[in-house]
Amino acid sequence: MDLAADPVEITAALVDIESVSGAEARIADTVEAALREQAPWLEVLRSGNAVLARTALGRHRRIVLAGHLDTVPVNRNLPLRREGSGQQEVLHGLGTVDMKGGDAVFLHLAATVAEPKHDLTFVFYDCEEVEAARNGLGRIERDHAGWLAGDLAVVGEPTNAVIEAGCQGTMRVELRITGQRAHTARAWRGSNAIHGLAEPLRRLAEYTPRTPKIDGLTYREGLQAVNVAGGVAGNVVPDEAVLAINHRFAPDRSPEQAEQHLREVFDGFELTVVDTAPGALPGLAAPAAAELVTAAGGQPMAKLGWTDVARFAALGMPAVNFGPGDPALAHTRGEHVPAVQIRQVAAVLTRFLSP
Amino acid sequence: MDLAADPVEITAALVDIESVSGAEARIADTVEAALREQAPWLEVLRSGNAVLARTALGRHRRIVLAGHLDTVPVNRNLPLRREGSGQQEVLHGLGTVDMKGGDAVFLHLAATVAEPKHDLTFVFYDCEEVEAARNGLGRIERDHAGWLAGDLAVVGEPTNAVIEAGCQGTMRVELRITGQRAHTARAWRGSNAIHGLAEPLRRLAEYTPRTPKIDGLTYREGLQAVNVAGGVAGNVVPDEAVLAINHRFAPDRSPEQAEQHLREVFDGFELTVVDTAPGALPGLAAPAAAELVTAAGGQPMAKLGWTDVARFAALGMPAVNFGPGDPALAHTRGEHVPAVQIRQVAAVLTRFLSP
Repeated sequence: MDLAADPVEITAALVDIESVSGAEARIADTVEAALREQAPWLEVLRSGNAVLARTALGRHRRIVLAGHLDTVPVNRNLPLRREGSGQQEVLHGLGTVDMKGGDAVFLHLAATVAEPKHDLTFVFYDCEEVEAARNGLGRIERDHAGWLAGDLAVVGEPTNAVIEAGCQGTMRVELRITGQRAHTARAWRGSNAIHGLAEPLRRLAEYTPRTPKIDGLTYREGLQAVNVAGGVAGNVVPDEAVLAINHRFAPDRSPEQAEQHLREVFDGFELTVVDTAPGALPGLAAPAAAELVTAAGGQPMAKLGWTDVARFAALGMPAVNFGPGDPALAHTRGEHVPAVQIRQVAAVLTRFLSP
Repeated sequence: MDLAADPVEITAALVDIESVSGAEARIADTVEAALREQAPWLEVLRSGNAVLARTALGRHRRIVLAGHLDTVPVNRNLPLRREGSGQQEVLHGLGTVDMKGGDAVFLHLAATVAEPKHDLTFVFYDCEEVEAARNGLGRIERDHAGWLAGDLAVVGEPTNAVIEAGCQGTMRVELRITGQRAHTARAWRGSNAIHGLAEPLRRLAEYTPRTPKIDGLTYREGLQAVNVAGGVAGNVVPDEAVLAINHRFAPDRSPEQAEQHLREVFDGFELTVVDTAPGALPGLAAPAAAELVTAAGGQPMAKLGWTDVARFAALGMPAVNFGPGDPALAHTRGEHVPAVQIRQVAAVLTRFLSP
């Protein structure tokens, strides 16, 4: 793998190394070997199936560039398939979008920007696509906390090569209706828990989400039922029904404020918070972030989905998402990325990091 | 098993022969042997795990007395437990209510009413508590149709020793909402199928069931959600939600009319009939039925649950439910029957059948 080559070629090489979460040893070995050989000025650290590398140039600021090496399971979308050529070329296959294009750009920068304007820390990590407890960033934070510090984090998740700042928080709650069981032939002796969902579902269907502006970016919240379950048997009035609801909230609200809001929306109903992850404020006022926005030369957008930028935000750093590929294609069988987006992200970051 | 004994003792003996659906061989053997030995004037027929017996006295009318021998699965409610004595005695255990008390009364009549006013056919059958296709009455209808013919059918299902005439029909439908999948962080790109349940659930919650009078009996219909399911993943706007609804309809409506009614109630929604069973008109105007009502000396009631009386009604016979035990206790772990109800049903039927 030639890190000085066109990052499109690096992307292609990475895609063809299968790396479903938990099985990233081979791709981590390849990344580690390439960095040690082709960027000998970097300090390299191996942590499980993660590879970290950093400069120590004594610069005023440090930028952390982070990308996960794992993918969701293979879905008849490997090996890589290339279509078209030049500016029209498109790369099809698992990981082209989420997120080996971003990884390729970072690897290219590591080997080609030997005298960057800011100190750099590269984090290529494992197990982002599975439960949070297995996420490689969590392990790195526990074992090598100093390696994640910096003045700005750039997470290479797909954003269609647009700076997407911060991220929205997410919260899952369960709304439980309790009734009274009875035979359906004598239904008046019971109380139907499923019928009791009519009112909370009406509130959901009529809910108007907020669209707050933060640092000039418009966030778009959401409140969606994601599961409903209830029923005992075909001839029984059910005594329990449970509605699972996912709330996406803009980063001007804390999880506590979001929960309070849901308790107001569903006033009168039994609500339990199942899990939550805070959002991340865009933090574009920070000098390094402002520089990056200028280098990108376009209007940044608000990130609506939750990403690992929130982990960096929790460490007190501004953090943005910036990577090639359409996020709507992530986790779909038909993942594909225009080669031009990979080159565009590489060009912006090279401009940003060049003295 | 002494069929001439107090039917309470026969009930006790039957309860202690475990006979979960599909495993009725032993109880059928016992019933068959007792009938052949103690009622030698009856023609006896064995069909699988069912036992049939009949008189051939050339009477003007024939009464069919039918009871199933099987029970739902054991639920730590065997062996039989007897509590109190005399008029206060209560029998506890699986089958005391559903429906070995009724079986015991019929067996007692078979052996003690040797010169009945009407010809009699006794049907002790298997697999009533499982899917309709396995029901012993269906097999008997196919293999020995003549044996089920008569002028009145008395099914010994528990009715608290009150004549419960006819039965309501039952219909299960599925209402399906189709939406459009999307990531919950970009929910406006999708259409939430679970939210689409708000309106049909409102109609269900606000529905007022009919209470039609037929032959002087009040039936009480019902429309109840019995299951709800929907959901793809915790971060996905679901594209499908399905509501299962059970409709109990009075026997003045055919299944076709009931379906038409549901299509009006849920106008605008996709509705599929999953299964249905017609009701049975009470038919109390038929002479034999009127005689039985007189012998019972009380006000008959409408049967709200579906029972095998509908099978006899479909053969063109009036059919009533009449048996000891509280139907609300059927299929519960705590099934129990007052001994006095068993004796009361036996006394009414003896009076009805005596010349």
